[in-house]
Amino acid sequence: QGTRDHPPAQAALRERLLSAVVSCFKRHGAAAIDTPVLELRETLVGKYGEGAKLIYELQDQGGELLALRYDLTVPFARYLAMNKITKMKRYHVAKVYRRDNPATTRGRYREFYQCDFDIAGQFDPMIPDAECLKIVHEILSDLQLGDFVIKVNDRRILNGVFAVCGVPESKFIPACCTMDKLDKVPWEEVRSEMVGEKGLSPEAADRIGEYVQLHGGLDLIEQLLQDPKLSQNKEAKEGLGDMKLLFEYLTLFGITGKISFDLSLARGLDYYTGVIFEAVLLQQENEHVEEPVSVGSVAGGGRYDELVGMFDAKGRKVPCVGVSIGIERIFSILEQRLEASGEKLRTTETQVLVATPQKHLLAARMKLISELWDAGIKAEMLYKKDPKLLKQLQYCEDTGIPLAAIVGEQELADGVVKLRDIATRKEVRM
Amino acid sequence: QGTRDHPPAQAALRERLLSAVVSCFKRHGAAAIDTPVLELRETLVGKYGEGAKLIYELQDQGGELLALRYDLTVPFARYLAMNKITKMKRYHVAKVYRRDNPATTRGRYREFYQCDFDIAGQFDPMIPDAECLKIVHEILSDLQLGDFVIKVNDRRILNGVFAVCGVPESKFIPACCTMDKLDKVPWEEVRSEMVGEKGLSPEAADRIGEYVQLHGGLDLIEQLLQDPKLSQNKEAKEGLGDMKLLFEYLTLFGITGKISFDLSLARGLDYYTGVIFEAVLLQQENEHVEEPVSVGSVAGGGRYDELVGMFDAKGRKVPCVGVSIGIERIFSILEQRLEASGEKLRTTETQVLVATPQKHLLAARMKLISELWDAGIKAEMLYKKDPKLLKQLQYCEDTGIPLAAIVGEQELADGVVKLRDIATRKEVRM
Repeated sequence: QGTRDHPPAQAALRERLLSAVVSCFKRHGAAAIDTPVLELRETLVGKYGEGAKLIYELQDQGGELLALRYDLTVPFARYLAMNKITKMKRYHVAKVYRRDNPATTRGRYREFYQCDFDIAGQFDPMIPDAECLKIVHEILSDLQLGDFVIKVNDRRILNGVFAVCGVPESKFIPACCTMDKLDKVPWEEVRSEMVGEKGLSPEAADRIGEYVQLHGGLDLIEQLLQDPKLSQNKEAKEGLGDMKLLFEYLTLFGITGKISFDLSLARGLDYYTGVIFEAVLLQQENEHVEEPVSVGSVAGGGRYDELVGMFDAKGRKVPCVGVSIGIERIFSILEQRLEASGEKLRTTETQVLVATPQKHLLAARMKLISELWDAGIKAEMLYKKDPKLLKQLQYCEDTGIPLAAIVGEQELADGVVKLRDIATRKEVRM
Repeated sequence: QGTRDHPPAQAALRERLLSAVVSCFKRHGAAAIDTPVLELRETLVGKYGEGAKLIYELQDQGGELLALRYDLTVPFARYLAMNKITKMKRYHVAKVYRRDNPATTRGRYREFYQCDFDIAGQFDPMIPDAECLKIVHEILSDLQLGDFVIKVNDRRILNGVFAVCGVPESKFIPACCTMDKLDKVPWEEVRSEMVGEKGLSPEAADRIGEYVQLHGGLDLIEQLLQDPKLSQNKEAKEGLGDMKLLFEYLTLFGITGKISFDLSLARGLDYYTGVIFEAVLLQQENEHVEEPVSVGSVAGGGRYDELVGMFDAKGRKVPCVGVSIGIERIFSILEQRLEASGEKLRTTETQVLVATPQKHLLAARMKLISELWDAGIKAEMLYKKDPKLLKQLQYCEDTGIPLAAIVGEQELADGVVKLRDIATRKEVRM
């Protein structure tokens, strides 16, 4: 349940999509790493907020207690700490596992690919953070997914908002987790969970409600830097200062047009400590809708400066910032689009079919195809001793093989091969 | 335990290796598929002989009972049956899981990659089987792993041997599993397990012992076809007839030089029904050794005509033959070889570092690098506001970046960029 096989057509489309994402990561100088699907259970504990209950655990068959990775970020942090690496730019494309309620039509699965790019190391503020946003911008533009917006916020600004609204510090993370649902449910529901389940005062919740409606650009940052309450809060001030710097860098990258500083963005994970962001596609199918509607998040990430330290015996910190591309939703969109276009994606790369027009020529086919393979040419033949020529040519048409190399008795006698262009039916002897 | 992280240098080498294997699979016209790491436990039961105890099971957290896949063959068969596919040539490169005693120095892990190529469908005998052997031959030759031999046998011939030696049919598979250890332990040990654990009569074991010493080529096939006992056994006769046909095809492919018909080859898995094969590298380091020593299997496979039917409600069979490349052992060999050569594999593909020679030029760097990225050029910059030029050039040398694009105050004023070749130190303004 919640998993799926990828038949060849899907696998080919996925390969095309992943290769577009990976080439962007490589364009930004990232190296690949790989980590096991299995992690020690204790590695995953306490990193995912309310996601913890979705972790797949392995049966205790003796030995270590294991679980399936929930994302690629925690394994990356564990990897850095274990190997005492303090500086690294890496990408990782791999499957992760969540015992979630699958919603396969919306591209939500229990086993799915993540494509992560992260920068670890102590650097000048907001330079790596800005690059992560540039990467999201490049990938979503390259893939031509339509209009999108990248929402940006900062956990320190959120903490400042919570503080000035009268939320005790111990409830910052639970309040964040609740706020994270704002893109799916209306504020009223989020408010009632904050007051009910999370135990915030109604007044605090209402004050938060005023802030989370705000979104904008540099102007909003300036406005909040002047906000009589927020400007008094150390964390908020730091966060807003960095947000201003980030916008400066994003201006140099020429991408502020797609960026929205959005106080309602919270992200559900425990480990974020600074900038957070999320890219959403904007629905534009219906031109009569006045405001574009969000069709869900296709990328997200943020800064997590404490996570590596949690895996280091001496608590040594390695600041990190990263982005994860939501490849499954993008895949669903591309798949629907391909279907609508009627385009048929080839699932193989075969260049030539080796064919014979008469019986008793299997040996000739086998000799020729062997030569082609050895020369690095992608070649197939039918696995029949005496296939009909029509069947062989039909196979080319069905699978998109552009050429047939035909050896008949005459060709054998003349020491030539007849090469036939399937589309034009033109033949040359060579 | 028994798993590992792949740091960038290993990940880069692995990418190179996998791409060599995959391009061979594509050269033979295979399409890619992907299946989940998770399978229903019941899917895996009864397919792996003594391997069954090595299956990783997931905890019962409610819902389906799951396990991690043990190989890619059983999921492929399940996929074919589920989707009622009767004809397919596919490859699949993915991780599989076995709770084995890890022997990491010999490349044996609990999580490891398999690279499988399989041909499913009803075809004329031995044509797809011969192609599988050709593929093994191509891959091992391409990778220049040194001398190798591909041992070939047939389960039907083995069954015939067991039958004429007086082994009851119910013990064919257990006897096969025991014989599979012949490449690791001497015949005496295998014999004593057959008699002790598997309950064969000492006489039967001794008779088997005579057959399993035989290996050769067409001559041996002819000899066994004349064997007074074997030639009376229906299964053995069929197997030997097909083996003769296989050798005919392998002659057309020009690869019989590396093929050995070897009666000791058994393969440990339950599901094989016909041809089986295994490729081993021959140790040649020590020239004084008279006979080359095997350093272990690097590829294996065979025909399994009944497996798909086990997943079909009506038991409809789809004959299959396939090969699995033992990528981990090959990887270990290539890694050792790379280490010995002192060659340093680049882990990134960055073409140019954007650098500045003076302070206060971060904005210029960011503008230029943004242009480069947008033009599809692989570019990096240091994440410092004011890095020293020397540090920037040093970074190029350390990571193998061939070019630096330098923008200083003069270049900015002149509207140019200075491009520096790191190796030659030559610079051009452009």
